[in-house]
Amino acid sequence: MPVATKKIIKEVRSLKHKKFRDEKQAYFAEGIAITLSALENNAPVRYVVYSPELLKSEVAYRVLSEVKHRIPCYEAGAEAFQTISGRDNPVGLGAVVGYRDISPESPELLKCSKFVCLDGVKSPGNLGTVIRAADCLGFGVLISGESTDHYHPECVKASMGALYTVPVARFDTADGLKQWCDKHGVFLVTTSSRARDDITRIAAYPRPVAALLGSEATGLSRDILESGESQVRIPMYGASTSLNLAVAAGILMYDIATKPRRKVGG
Amino acid sequence: MPVATKKIIKEVRSLKHKKFRDEKQAYFAEGIAITLSALENNAPVRYVVYSPELLKSEVAYRVLSEVKHRIPCYEAGAEAFQTISGRDNPVGLGAVVGYRDISPESPELLKCSKFVCLDGVKSPGNLGTVIRAADCLGFGVLISGESTDHYHPECVKASMGALYTVPVARFDTADGLKQWCDKHGVFLVTTSSRARDDITRIAAYPRPVAALLGSEATGLSRDILESGESQVRIPMYGASTSLNLAVAAGILMYDIATKPRRKVGG
Repeated sequence: MPVATKKIIKEVRSLKHKKFRDEKQAYFAEGIAITLSALENNAPVRYVVYSPELLKSEVAYRVLSEVKHRIPCYEAGAEAFQTISGRDNPVGLGAVVGYRDISPESPELLKCSKFVCLDGVKSPGNLGTVIRAADCLGFGVLISGESTDHYHPECVKASMGALYTVPVARFDTADGLKQWCDKHGVFLVTTSSRARDDITRIAAYPRPVAALLGSEATGLSRDILESGESQVRIPMYGASTSLNLAVAAGILMYDIATKPRRKVGG
Repeated sequence: MPVATKKIIKEVRSLKHKKFRDEKQAYFAEGIAITLSALENNAPVRYVVYSPELLKSEVAYRVLSEVKHRIPCYEAGAEAFQTISGRDNPVGLGAVVGYRDISPESPELLKCSKFVCLDGVKSPGNLGTVIRAADCLGFGVLISGESTDHYHPECVKASMGALYTVPVARFDTADGLKQWCDKHGVFLVTTSSRARDDITRIAAYPRPVAALLGSEATGLSRDILESGESQVRIPMYGASTSLNLAVAAGILMYDIATKPRRKVGG
């Protein structure tokens, strides 16, 4: 397979920075599970970079030999791969993948009946972990406000490939998200540790349903919290009163996914 | 307040490495919430370091002026503080705290009726996030096997101060943990994505109860999984079949905390 030129290595390295990702409309998806998920799920992979010195996965080599006829696969030395990697011990496989943003009006998104929504999420690791959990629990993901980039390397890593199986759409503001819910008849549940209703008291949720969580540091603003048709909190039993955002989102999705569907107006 | 000498700054910086933490039997707990939690909860704080140029929290200054008579509080310049910090934007407050390991036989641990247990957890961020969630949901924490150090800076950070309110005990092996459960009549629930019982089908859990999760990469070994009196999985509804470890632990703790207590032998 062709060798990665210095130009290619430099391009991949530049994608660590949002400025260059936006310029190229592409990001580097690093790791075996993530690269294979991108290839399997027909993500817009521009090329693959791998390092024979580092890559030990037989499955990965089998996939590479299948895709190399339609997608460029470049060999890189271990040292060159280190410079493009975001990990201490790189596994030697990654793909440069083009942005594929989903419109809030896309059928792919609208066929979902459950959504987890994050307003102003700051940590790319948290966002990726929520996308991964959304995939496991059958949710679409909506992001609003001044949230971190979902193509940030730490988000891509934490998503473990779920970025290619879960629809993720962005809204400029939580208000825009609320309007989208109203337009499509999606029941909006907002969350806060100070909210009225403990989720353990909720017997059933309507469908479609969207659960909105605020930022790590400050949560949802009062206005947005009050715009929820239901305002809920996760019960707390100890000294701490705040869960990590991804853990809170996971618990909420689990609660919604496993409780019965509530009939509306029935 | 006295100025932090070069020797002190050097000592704090060395605590980024496990070797020096073990040598000094101490670690650096950085951040406002974490430092205040250590002071409030009578953790063995040896001294506090703060940077007047960086620290903007009024609450923090109030606490410092209260504790400075009994605990040394050293001032450091912004540049010196940067060198001891593990963060991109340090808030300018941290404490050097002595190890305080809890014995599995300590009353503090044995008074708990719910435990979350991690065997071979590798990510300090995951471990800290689980400790934080354990505090919120009222669980003690048991760690076994080749697990990461709970005094690692990333674990301390992710725990958000819960390290000082939640009892955390270590076992050399998962077998040792299982024996401890048997000795103290603790019902052991083991977990795996391949386990027989879906947790949504469980109506109630006995007390005391311990839920054991395996490592991020490989989960629990077959032997350990089968040693559980109940073997459970979290239901999956999407393409991914594996949740982040801290999210899985959070969901499991929520399920146990909010379901009724099962009478044993009743």
